[in-house]
Amino acid sequence: MADSPQVCGPAVPTESSRAVLRPLGVGDVDITGGPLGRWQRINREASIPLGLEQMERAGAVPNLRRAAGEADGAYQGYRFQDSDLYKQLEAVAWEHARRPGPGYPEFIAGSAALLGRAQRPDGYLNSHYQVVKPDKIYAELEYSHEMYCAGHLFQAAVASARAGGDPRLLEVSRRLADHLVAVFLTGGDDGIDGHAEVETALVELYRVTGERTYLELAGKLIDNRGKGLIKDSGMGPLYAQDHLPVREADTPVGHAVRQLYLEAGIVDVYLETGDESLLECSVRRWEDMVATKMYLTGGVGSRHDGEAFGERYELPPDRAYNESCAAIASVHWNWRLLLATGDGRYADLIERVLYNAFAASTSADGLRFFYVNPLQRRDDTVEDAYLGRRREWFACACCPPNIMRTVASLGHYVATTAGRATQVHQYVPGVIRSGDLVLRVSTDYPWDGRVTFTVERAPAGEWSLALRVPAWSAATTVDGAPVTPGERGYTVLTRTWRPGDTVELRLDLTPRLTHPHRRIDAVRGCAAVERGPIVYCFEQADQPVDLDELALVPGAALRVVPEEHLDGVGRTVLIEADAVAITQPSRGLPYTSTPPTGLATSTRVTATAVPYYQWDNRGAGAMRVWLPLA
Amino acid sequence: MADSPQVCGPAVPTESSRAVLRPLGVGDVDITGGPLGRWQRINREASIPLGLEQMERAGAVPNLRRAAGEADGAYQGYRFQDSDLYKQLEAVAWEHARRPGPGYPEFIAGSAALLGRAQRPDGYLNSHYQVVKPDKIYAELEYSHEMYCAGHLFQAAVASARAGGDPRLLEVSRRLADHLVAVFLTGGDDGIDGHAEVETALVELYRVTGERTYLELAGKLIDNRGKGLIKDSGMGPLYAQDHLPVREADTPVGHAVRQLYLEAGIVDVYLETGDESLLECSVRRWEDMVATKMYLTGGVGSRHDGEAFGERYELPPDRAYNESCAAIASVHWNWRLLLATGDGRYADLIERVLYNAFAASTSADGLRFFYVNPLQRRDDTVEDAYLGRRREWFACACCPPNIMRTVASLGHYVATTAGRATQVHQYVPGVIRSGDLVLRVSTDYPWDGRVTFTVERAPAGEWSLALRVPAWSAATTVDGAPVTPGERGYTVLTRTWRPGDTVELRLDLTPRLTHPHRRIDAVRGCAAVERGPIVYCFEQADQPVDLDELALVPGAALRVVPEEHLDGVGRTVLIEADAVAITQPSRGLPYTSTPPTGLATSTRVTATAVPYYQWDNRGAGAMRVWLPLA
Repeated sequence: MADSPQVCGPAVPTESSRAVLRPLGVGDVDITGGPLGRWQRINREASIPLGLEQMERAGAVPNLRRAAGEADGAYQGYRFQDSDLYKQLEAVAWEHARRPGPGYPEFIAGSAALLGRAQRPDGYLNSHYQVVKPDKIYAELEYSHEMYCAGHLFQAAVASARAGGDPRLLEVSRRLADHLVAVFLTGGDDGIDGHAEVETALVELYRVTGERTYLELAGKLIDNRGKGLIKDSGMGPLYAQDHLPVREADTPVGHAVRQLYLEAGIVDVYLETGDESLLECSVRRWEDMVATKMYLTGGVGSRHDGEAFGERYELPPDRAYNESCAAIASVHWNWRLLLATGDGRYADLIERVLYNAFAASTSADGLRFFYVNPLQRRDDTVEDAYLGRRREWFACACCPPNIMRTVASLGHYVATTAGRATQVHQYVPGVIRSGDLVLRVSTDYPWDGRVTFTVERAPAGEWSLALRVPAWSAATTVDGAPVTPGERGYTVLTRTWRPGDTVELRLDLTPRLTHPHRRIDAVRGCAAVERGPIVYCFEQADQPVDLDELALVPGAALRVVPEEHLDGVGRTVLIEADAVAITQPSRGLPYTSTPPTGLATSTRVTATAVPYYQWDNRGAGAMRVWLPLA
Repeated sequence: MADSPQVCGPAVPTESSRAVLRPLGVGDVDITGGPLGRWQRINREASIPLGLEQMERAGAVPNLRRAAGEADGAYQGYRFQDSDLYKQLEAVAWEHARRPGPGYPEFIAGSAALLGRAQRPDGYLNSHYQVVKPDKIYAELEYSHEMYCAGHLFQAAVASARAGGDPRLLEVSRRLADHLVAVFLTGGDDGIDGHAEVETALVELYRVTGERTYLELAGKLIDNRGKGLIKDSGMGPLYAQDHLPVREADTPVGHAVRQLYLEAGIVDVYLETGDESLLECSVRRWEDMVATKMYLTGGVGSRHDGEAFGERYELPPDRAYNESCAAIASVHWNWRLLLATGDGRYADLIERVLYNAFAASTSADGLRFFYVNPLQRRDDTVEDAYLGRRREWFACACCPPNIMRTVASLGHYVATTAGRATQVHQYVPGVIRSGDLVLRVSTDYPWDGRVTFTVERAPAGEWSLALRVPAWSAATTVDGAPVTPGERGYTVLTRTWRPGDTVELRLDLTPRLTHPHRRIDAVRGCAAVERGPIVYCFEQADQPVDLDELALVPGAALRVVPEEHLDGVGRTVLIEADAVAITQPSRGLPYTSTPPTGLATSTRVTATAVPYYQWDNRGAGAMRVWLPLA
């Protein structure tokens, strides 16, 4: 075993790593309510059972039976179908660690046994290539997803191992990882998977096993990217981030999920090797992404074509791709940057992604999922029937089990420790166990800005409690006194704590009218509504007129509507805004010498906004995050 | 032979058709100067020779040799590679009709002979399916392009026949058309090609041969569309316009070139059968397209994904697809609607498309082509290296020979006759021979608004001369007197003409600041510059500051710069506009509670615009048609 601490979570740097913060395990934080608690309940009750059913129906398990010689019939689905099962296994492993569940150990043990039987004696394992293309093993890495699938297996095995589950998943993983090492590290093959993912997974497998060649292989795959070693899959070199060496690239490009999984691997390798040049280049791209290529919701990927990042400031709300998996990959990357630097801006972004881009991916009942998460839907989205509404499952089902593994492990992302300190990054009601400090957190966040911490168990001597002050909170108090956060975005209370001590944090939830940078062409002249970490949107169902005729009054007064329950949505807080309805005739060329204001008529109305993540739970109507200013 | 008149042009309704206007042949109009004359010269001197070279190099001719059993080696290129040769043949046929050229008859005769040898005894002809997939003939119509290729062959044969060329092209076409009739009309097979094109071509072949089953098959293919008879190619039913019967669809959808070729076929079948329901539905979609789905340049197709129409008002300038072939298909459709109705709005749109969306497709030297024609390019378009600049050729080379056949036949679109009248739709210097009326046209249009017509030969008795008054001309005079166009957009002079009579038309070329309809989200708060039929753009090369910092002063004064010659572009007329340079810091989240105006600094500058069609001839810098208003 390595010197990795016994922490049960999805990203746990070793004791000798460069991590300045240390994570807690998924079981060290109980989330007892709030949206995150609700998502965990629905994940357990609705999403995971649906996912388990789909493992048989959509072919992932039958394909592995075929690879084991135990079933007939044609291979089902995409060439990366194995990864659906691996993500589902990881979801179940974290969920079981959080709270043991019926059938979970059997599902993991049964899957591990099947994988053991499907695996070749030399360690290779991939049902698509074993069943369909045995002569093409590792010969089509530009699109084969073989290492991508392996990475997801490793992550599932790491989860199961950290949770103390069936060791066979780890055994299968080690045999496969050793095979990769034999071919691609000691064997001298310079192949690289077109879809990054195995890099971060190899580092995690190193952390659990102490096998250093896994870390070395991850480093090699990262160092060799951008040298043209990936054959063109027809999408060009940017698609797979093979256009430039990672240390030279200034901006995220190509397939968004690939770029962000790659970044997670880059930071992981930095953490374990101390190679500063890796952290530097990753931070550089993070800064560029945040300033020029990220949506207000924290979503990334502006283009359907290639599921890709666009150019700087290319951020169309209607054709935003914003794949759910990219939101998840962003959480992975930000989490590792947070551990590496302790800078709260990464925790700020995790919050933005979690409550918006990520949360929107799942329906209120946990049974339907978005693959694509736009910031605008028109009323004639008939053309996008496939991607325009949430669906139960997808032919390419990368997102649903990815969402499930993330929700099951949310406790991991709430708090960290470092020396004699605990850092709270996300505010959820429940309990945080950080070594000798046990905190009870009482809050109705994000609907209410008050968060009360009660010390249930205190360490001996002084201990610091660092509370993140979100950048959006204009006026923050602790126990009634205004606080100014430190450079890294936290307010730090260093005391000798006693059981029963309390701290009350108040964040400023005054609703905000938000304006885009003038270079974001696609939403010029528009504004959006935010409150706390929540981005709002306007759904047709709540408006008195056609949504596309609505315009906000500049500097519009925003009124918080007392909390309510919406059918199909559940608990919510709505916001009303002063607006006008503007009608412009639509006949002939929509280009005239008269400014549109001269052609339009307008009347005063009230526009009503609902949290973006709760959209599409009440029918197929139009939706906009950004409304024009009148 | 049918009762088709001996007119040598690409769309010639029969005498018994419902056409209210009758076309002239490509040889009936000499274009001696102006941009159209320049394009014809460059087409002959540069583009066509390049295209002829590519017929060998890119595989179209070698593939047919393989089908004829005369060559070895693997099939080259896409499954619709044959169509490149067919479009090239059509280009050469029209060019030869316009002005005989060296090697043209030999190229046509040699190709016809090769096609005759490649053609199966039963009439079937498609090199891809004969060489690569003989067992899949007509079995993959959803993406096979077999009828699409056949259609382009028919159009080439019609061109060659009308130009009095080698009859073998027509013989090959008839055998293939008879095979299609035997399978899909009398044979009862309800197959439909996923890519519409054969419909309009079959009607043209009927017009030349009098063979009514060709018209009947075209009608059947149109009537059966939208009934789910096309298998899903993976792109959904909208992609191939198979979502609704054509008489029920209200808006153009899916792959833009397919939709527009289909429309050309629909109007052609109306013209020859008189089925008013076909004209009605096509006009309905035209009106919807023009009002909600067309760019200022006349380009259509808002999405890279599926090369498709977007939703209503989804018109992003940066990600506009605007395929060059869609501009050509739009000319085909508009021309048929003009012949069917006599309504000048269709000629107006042909002018808009020709001088902008279409003209931009080709470099000033005629040697490079755009596939995609956006209205904005950012300075980091590195990501789009493939589609961001014009290229000499493409793996999918549908556009270049399509451009060549269109340029060679431009004379066809200038004027028409009807009864004792001549209608002039496009203003070009040269000669128009409309029966007994021969007009010399002197003009420097579109750089100058004066057009002088001199009668060189006059018919006996009264004859009407109808001159189109473009909708953009705010003040139009004829011989100094203001004119108000009739309902159909023409001013009509009915006289007994004498040789030497002159008419001077003056169109208003005052530059215009153009505003978009408020529902076009992607260019909200922006304006564009137009002058006459020319849409302008702002290229980085001409600006004193970073293009993306430029904003027009509302109601900006527009100044026409005296005509000049720009290196790489040639003759042009520039326009200067009052503008400001606005700098907004770009750090951290590009979303703030402060309106952008509060964060920016600005200075007065002059912005300089160049005709859009002349862009990308001076390097790879940024370009915008729409500039923000300060």
